[in-house]
Amino acid sequence: MSGKAIQDFYPTDVSYCYGCGRLNEHGHRIKTHWDGDETVTMFTPQPFHIAIPGYVYGGLLASLVDCHSTGTAAAAAYRAENREPGTDPPFRFVTASLKVDYLKPTPLGVPLEIRGRVVEIKGRKVVVSAAISARGVVCVRGEAVTVQMPEQMLAEKGATT
Amino acid sequence: MSGKAIQDFYPTDVSYCYGCGRLNEHGHRIKTHWDGDETVTMFTPQPFHIAIPGYVYGGLLASLVDCHSTGTAAAAAYRAENREPGTDPPFRFVTASLKVDYLKPTPLGVPLEIRGRVVEIKGRKVVVSAAISARGVVCVRGEAVTVQMPEQMLAEKGATT
Repeated sequence: MSGKAIQDFYPTDVSYCYGCGRLNEHGHRIKTHWDGDETVTMFTPQPFHIAIPGYVYGGLLASLVDCHSTGTAAAAAYRAENREPGTDPPFRFVTASLKVDYLKPTPLGVPLEIRGRVVEIKGRKVVVSAAISARGVVCVRGEAVTVQMPEQMLAEKGATT
Repeated sequence: MSGKAIQDFYPTDVSYCYGCGRLNEHGHRIKTHWDGDETVTMFTPQPFHIAIPGYVYGGLLASLVDCHSTGTAAAAAYRAENREPGTDPPFRFVTASLKVDYLKPTPLGVPLEIRGRVVEIKGRKVVVSAAISARGVVCVRGEAVTVQMPEQMLAEKGATT
């Protein structure tokens, strides 16, 4: 994937998320792009992101579903308004509910592909379904109910939005 | 909490989980104990486990529900057989499905209490409900469907069980 990811357009003060904030030097800093009507994030876990030997830790997989979904929601919200990411007002979503099904153990040591699809956009809510594949095999399916971040939460913390 | 946690009894080769393995030096190394009919884990996130300023990253919260639940499942399985943890054969559970509801933002910088309760034990499956509280307020509710790890997976990786 080339070009900027949706996370590259998040306002600075809400760009520190451990999962997807480009400014969190300890975090995963995932990058989500459009691929037609789907979104894609590639991520290769570290050796210590282990569950049992040979397999990826489920908490990381839940995190990938989570942050890929909030990124997808933001991207979809811009698209729904026919606006380019980075135009004002910015979109930033948080997760209200997350469901993850571990269909089979996810192998450690290979790149993971997380693909998302918008299930519903309604008002401030975007529902996203996601699948995580390793070597072309879907290992995890998830769904996240995301909501546009309350302006109040941004304002409280002095965000630029 | 004093005494050994359920994770201290996991067989060595399955004690490297990023969330709960006592031997993963990069991980969270959570410790789960009984408190009557409930289980409790205390965990204080690091400053970089941030979602948006002031609040804990949802992926970490999902991880805490996940690993607290597998620990609770193992503890409950021993109890159901009237056996002490550490007696053979050992119990080790993995997560088949995880659901997390983020009821309100979870404040960063304070200890979190994760409490678990067994919803169902049936065959190799244990369903656990969990709640995460900060300053006495429940911020997250979750449920995990856990299953006893297949002996095959342990055997494949040379585990001692």
